[in-house]
Amino acid sequence: MKKTRITTTIYGRDYTIIGSEPAEHLRHVAHLVDTKMHEISAQNRALDSGRLAVLTAVNATHDYLLLEEKYNALKDELARYKGRDV
Amino acid sequence: MKKTRITTTIYGRDYTIIGSEPAEHLRHVAHLVDTKMHEISAQNRALDSGRLAVLTAVNATHDYLLLEEKYNALKDELARYKGRDV
Repeated sequence: MKKTRITTTIYGRDYTIIGSEPAEHLRHVAHLVDTKMHEISAQNRALDSGRLAVLTAVNATHDYLLLEEKYNALKDELARYKGRDV
Repeated sequence: MKKTRITTTIYGRDYTIIGSEPAEHLRHVAHLVDTKMHEISAQNRALDSGRLAVLTAVNATHDYLLLEEKYNALKDELARYKGRDV
């Protein structure tokens, strides 16, 4: 699979991010993380950047699990409509 | 809304995490982040913990966006089955 490699700045430090998605997608992900780190930092001025990044990861993982629940519920509903598993 | 507060260790440091979900859910989130940080660390031994946490956040956000695409596709499919928007 073709790999995309971008260099981007997140919370003041440069990162190389490699993925199979287009560069635009990787930049979008990096931008979301940068934005979330600044949001959390604004609410917790005393956090060092390492702790801030961990809490950002906690936040994103939490959002993922909530969406996963919604996704599974939707999948069940669709299966009922179809009358079979999807 | 009732808040849950837990104290947990992620990648060797203690964190207080506050959320509206049960403590068990918050511990699960923390455990996933801790596991992912160890995974990424094993692949990139030279990363300091701050950069490691940022890449973990990038990873989780990326997973979220992929799931969001799948979720939206499923929602569209269900809407077609129902013959109206959901």
